[in-house]
Amino acid sequence: MPELFDVHTPSDAWRKFMALFRSVPRAERVAVADALDRVLAAPLNAPHDLPGFPRSTVDGYAVAALDTYGASAGLPALLEVVGEVAMGEAASVRLDEAQCALVHTGGMIPADADAVVMVEHTQRVGGTEGKGGKQGKDGHEDEVSVSVVPLFSPFSIEIYRPVAVGQNVIQIGEDVRRGDLVLPAGHQIRPQDIGGLLALGIIEIDAAIAPRVGILSQGDEVVAPEETPGPGQVRDINSYTLAALTRRAGGVPVLYPIVPDRLEALEAAARQALDENDMLVISAGSSVSYRDMTAQVIQGLGEPGILVHGVSVKPGKPTILALCGDKPVCGLPGNPVSAMVIFDLFVAPAIRLLLGAQAAAKTQVPARLARNVASATGREDYVQVRLETREGEQWAVPVFGKSNLIYTLIRSDGVIRIPQDSNGVAQGSWVTVELH
Amino acid sequence: MPELFDVHTPSDAWRKFMALFRSVPRAERVAVADALDRVLAAPLNAPHDLPGFPRSTVDGYAVAALDTYGASAGLPALLEVVGEVAMGEAASVRLDEAQCALVHTGGMIPADADAVVMVEHTQRVGGTEGKGGKQGKDGHEDEVSVSVVPLFSPFSIEIYRPVAVGQNVIQIGEDVRRGDLVLPAGHQIRPQDIGGLLALGIIEIDAAIAPRVGILSQGDEVVAPEETPGPGQVRDINSYTLAALTRRAGGVPVLYPIVPDRLEALEAAARQALDENDMLVISAGSSVSYRDMTAQVIQGLGEPGILVHGVSVKPGKPTILALCGDKPVCGLPGNPVSAMVIFDLFVAPAIRLLLGAQAAAKTQVPARLARNVASATGREDYVQVRLETREGEQWAVPVFGKSNLIYTLIRSDGVIRIPQDSNGVAQGSWVTVELH
Repeated sequence: MPELFDVHTPSDAWRKFMALFRSVPRAERVAVADALDRVLAAPLNAPHDLPGFPRSTVDGYAVAALDTYGASAGLPALLEVVGEVAMGEAASVRLDEAQCALVHTGGMIPADADAVVMVEHTQRVGGTEGKGGKQGKDGHEDEVSVSVVPLFSPFSIEIYRPVAVGQNVIQIGEDVRRGDLVLPAGHQIRPQDIGGLLALGIIEIDAAIAPRVGILSQGDEVVAPEETPGPGQVRDINSYTLAALTRRAGGVPVLYPIVPDRLEALEAAARQALDENDMLVISAGSSVSYRDMTAQVIQGLGEPGILVHGVSVKPGKPTILALCGDKPVCGLPGNPVSAMVIFDLFVAPAIRLLLGAQAAAKTQVPARLARNVASATGREDYVQVRLETREGEQWAVPVFGKSNLIYTLIRSDGVIRIPQDSNGVAQGSWVTVELH
Repeated sequence: MPELFDVHTPSDAWRKFMALFRSVPRAERVAVADALDRVLAAPLNAPHDLPGFPRSTVDGYAVAALDTYGASAGLPALLEVVGEVAMGEAASVRLDEAQCALVHTGGMIPADADAVVMVEHTQRVGGTEGKGGKQGKDGHEDEVSVSVVPLFSPFSIEIYRPVAVGQNVIQIGEDVRRGDLVLPAGHQIRPQDIGGLLALGIIEIDAAIAPRVGILSQGDEVVAPEETPGPGQVRDINSYTLAALTRRAGGVPVLYPIVPDRLEALEAAARQALDENDMLVISAGSSVSYRDMTAQVIQGLGEPGILVHGVSVKPGKPTILALCGDKPVCGLPGNPVSAMVIFDLFVAPAIRLLLGAQAAAKTQVPARLARNVASATGREDYVQVRLETREGEQWAVPVFGKSNLIYTLIRSDGVIRIPQDSNGVAQGSWVTVELH
């Protein structure tokens, strides 16, 4: 009883799908502070220079670099400290020749200065080394900082090293320039992006709305997890695993009640779930009749219908990729291991497309293969592996459970891919493990 | 003005912290279906065998293997099909010698059978190859499946290949055995774990309560992101970046208003934040006086106080690790790049300890270094890199922005670590990039 479908390689299957799929992500306004892991719907440009004023990168003295040229331990430059720039205030102090101002890390540089001498390379005349910064700070702590300049008592310092123009200074716009592209559309927001956007005063962004993914499971033998299965019955595994995988990929899973094993029931449930969501995933049983029924139902859901029926992947061959009324529909193999492999190959990327997102980075670790793994050429093999550290080296130990055992996935830490043109990988070879 | 602290290597610093830190994670009951990424507070064992009955892995005929021995294309075994096992029902059909029952993938095996012959290796006598399964299914679709056995019309099949005892059958407990450890305490729930737990009827678990992490930023120059900074002022970057990093590590960030640059203000804010949370992170400015003030405040928060002041890491040297009244307190460097490096090294692992969680897998990719990177021995260097694909190979291009520029982090995709005993890494070497 051979099934009548053309088997595609995974990349061919994806190309066929992509050739017809047009994603139109929708956006909503969200606060940047709450936008971790959200996907940008539009590119963001800098509204102004960052920083907006020249800042010191050290504790020290803002100087005209020219005043320090030739300075050395033997022949120090002598400068007068005529003021302090308090943190968070404009550097209003004016400097004449051979004058400088005390500045703190992150403080503003006065207009007449173009560099900062580190306090470590100075000595207060008549004082102890490096006391300058401390003293200024003490005044600060006495809460006179808001009006510290008028109360400042000038003193003199010796400088033992010259500085170049711009040294120890962050220039205006050195972090990012006004108008620069800050983050492109499709970028997924990381912690540091939140900081970078807020630094520019961007407190709201247009983020892609998470696509709703309808998840349908079928089978007369399947009961809900809270029920006690009778003989011949099993609890629903795939719906909840697929829901969690959907959430992780950036979608909103929408679960439906288990569909009984009748064509009309599956048709009605599939049509409703497709109407109510942006995408549909059907996980039926693994018997041929289930698979035939799934294909028949998907084909009736809308044009263009089934694009791919069968991929050269082990496990996961009986996969359906379809577009029904512009919405992606995926028929997954019923075995949990196969369903997860196919989810990663096709469903997660489709969710990313619906989000308008750039491809997500996969969590990968290098490891050495603990035993020989054979593979048939012409087919991509996905082998579940457990990671083990042996004498400081990471090893990938194949977990050869049947693909209809959910605990094959639970006992493994990740998966390795044996390419289509390979007939296996030798023990001891370095492989890349994609973590679950 | 040298700061008076002993610099520790990162591993020494962590050991010193771990020697005194005792984490007592708290747990709450949560639904497994909502438990993605939660951390198990207690180990879970299987309450029963999975599967609970012998299941077929193929569409075919449940047989006594003995009845098929010696079967071949030239000399097929002839068996009578006396019933069908409907999906989701007990296999009540009784088999005598040379009798078998039609079964579907995932269906139960009758008590008298010990193997399943794939339908592809049979032919219905007088019918076409492989029609048996289809025919049974057709009856199924006519909705007589609930009482199909009485209505079943026996027929005969030829079998062309022998099967061994157990072939194409999942045995009782083959997925997981009653009493087996299913998941250990500290395990972070993945999508497949949700499926595996629900398959066993485990619908609620004890999950660690996410620790609350108080985040304090200090500085007279710092204004809230929605404000327009005046000359010398900057918007708060670190609070929100640290909050997002905290959330990603599994904690609940609790932000406080920016603390003005006065000792009493920082003391009061730190004491309140420590009281209200399980952990405290203080991000002050980068000037020495800020750092001194932070150290002084942390030392006064409770015993044993500061354990580590200064780590041999670039960037990130002025780091404080403390335990105050059994709660971890971390003083982070003020520069955003340094703060993130130190967060990953110490704060994220401390949050994992508070969760009772196993170490999280880091997202790593191998890449070749695009240029020579020098490093001083005796210090770990963390170099921000951008990933670039060149002729199909992944390259790590160092991003040499100053560590006080937030966009250094945004322009980079990850970080490479130059070990303490290395004086650099040569261009073209393979390195491991830990993605942001």
